[in-house]
Amino acid sequence: MNSAVVNVVKIGGNVIDNPEALDKFLDDFVKIPTLKILVHGGGKIATAMAAKLGVETMMIDGRRVTSPAMLDVALMVYAGLINKKIVAGLQKRGCNAIGLCGADGMSVEARKRSPKPIDYGQVGDVVAVNQWVIDKLLKAELTPVFCAISCDFDGNLLNTNADTMATEIAQGLTELRDTRLTFCFEKRGVLADVDNPDSVIESIDRQSFAELKENGTINSGMLPKIENALKAVAQGVESVTIKSSEELLSESGTVIVR
Amino acid sequence: MNSAVVNVVKIGGNVIDNPEALDKFLDDFVKIPTLKILVHGGGKIATAMAAKLGVETMMIDGRRVTSPAMLDVALMVYAGLINKKIVAGLQKRGCNAIGLCGADGMSVEARKRSPKPIDYGQVGDVVAVNQWVIDKLLKAELTPVFCAISCDFDGNLLNTNADTMATEIAQGLTELRDTRLTFCFEKRGVLADVDNPDSVIESIDRQSFAELKENGTINSGMLPKIENALKAVAQGVESVTIKSSEELLSESGTVIVR
Repeated sequence: MNSAVVNVVKIGGNVIDNPEALDKFLDDFVKIPTLKILVHGGGKIATAMAAKLGVETMMIDGRRVTSPAMLDVALMVYAGLINKKIVAGLQKRGCNAIGLCGADGMSVEARKRSPKPIDYGQVGDVVAVNQWVIDKLLKAELTPVFCAISCDFDGNLLNTNADTMATEIAQGLTELRDTRLTFCFEKRGVLADVDNPDSVIESIDRQSFAELKENGTINSGMLPKIENALKAVAQGVESVTIKSSEELLSESGTVIVR
Repeated sequence: MNSAVVNVVKIGGNVIDNPEALDKFLDDFVKIPTLKILVHGGGKIATAMAAKLGVETMMIDGRRVTSPAMLDVALMVYAGLINKKIVAGLQKRGCNAIGLCGADGMSVEARKRSPKPIDYGQVGDVVAVNQWVIDKLLKAELTPVFCAISCDFDGNLLNTNADTMATEIAQGLTELRDTRLTFCFEKRGVLADVDNPDSVIESIDRQSFAELKENGTINSGMLPKIENALKAVAQGVESVTIKSSEELLSESGTVIVR
């Protein structure tokens, strides 16, 4: 194994919500020939669980608000159910995983987002990654599996965007190791033609991104993902790859570079 | 801090179910002047959550059966909600906690209990404690917080008795450190007179236990706790103390010795 390199891989709902896709993904994940960290989103389970429990899903301007009751649901589903099932699935495959949220080892410290202008509730923006703690786990031959919940030193657990969580963890580790970041999603990469699933743009840098944005090639959902990725490579992450969760081990997808 | 010694402290429902009691307990816990590990039970929250979700609580001979749906509830409530709130509460108090179940680092490996003569479902009996992983966390100045869920290498997460979990973890660490085990509960210790809360028996060994059992001083609920404790000291745990969660830091309770 190349232990100078760590690959931070993020998966979302298309994998989490589909047991077969998750199995296939975990089969591939354990074969990554470097140190690795998995960051997972929540999928639809939390929304379904909230509905079952009568916890109302509040939205402001199309964005979810995390009430204290909704945070409890997030803790149960993300940090409990999903995280531990992934850890057990990795143990079954011989990968010594350890499931974490940002509170564990204060590995991902956040600040509660200001309630002005919009109060999103128990939502946190990452302020620090405890690279030393995460690195000690890696040195102990453990594979950290993070759910997207962070914490502050006032004891608040905070819902955090999973893409942001993965990006911040990758950025936080760049001082100690060569860090790669991989976003897995349902498409094969960033598409030049949204109707052609094979029209994957091989590489994007800041300049080509400006052009793709200008001429409208990149749709609005993809914009923040690529902006985050460009920020990450600017801050020392070696590369950010956006690819299909079904093609984790192949040379595929869109690579974002400096 | 005396880092040659580790104190494994177990709390149950009387602390977990009462936010004020939990706050007071955590205030005390962080002041323990040795390395420490917290093991927590589930309390009433899981039963209440199961009822809300329409998951039936099945009992055989007065013992709970863990159906797959009930295991999901346990994962959500024990490994998610309770575990992460305790971790965040410890971080707030300056204690660098890390929340775990037995699957994490395969720290507590179990075997699914045989379905014969009685099928208790997703229930596990501990077969191994990965002392090296737990010790690496302690060396990294982390304080492990365990919920009572274990795991096997087939990827099964398994409900485990919290007293057993604490006992096995303590026993597992005896090769590496001087290990003490503390069971916190609602009484001040093992009582000579069940109607007198101050009639705490100071010390019990195998011989005095036989006598107390013979003359009926010790009631049936306390028997397995003391049998477990005697087993633990026989296997190298320095001492096992049974005491009130409100008196964690004082010299109190019943000490079980070899």
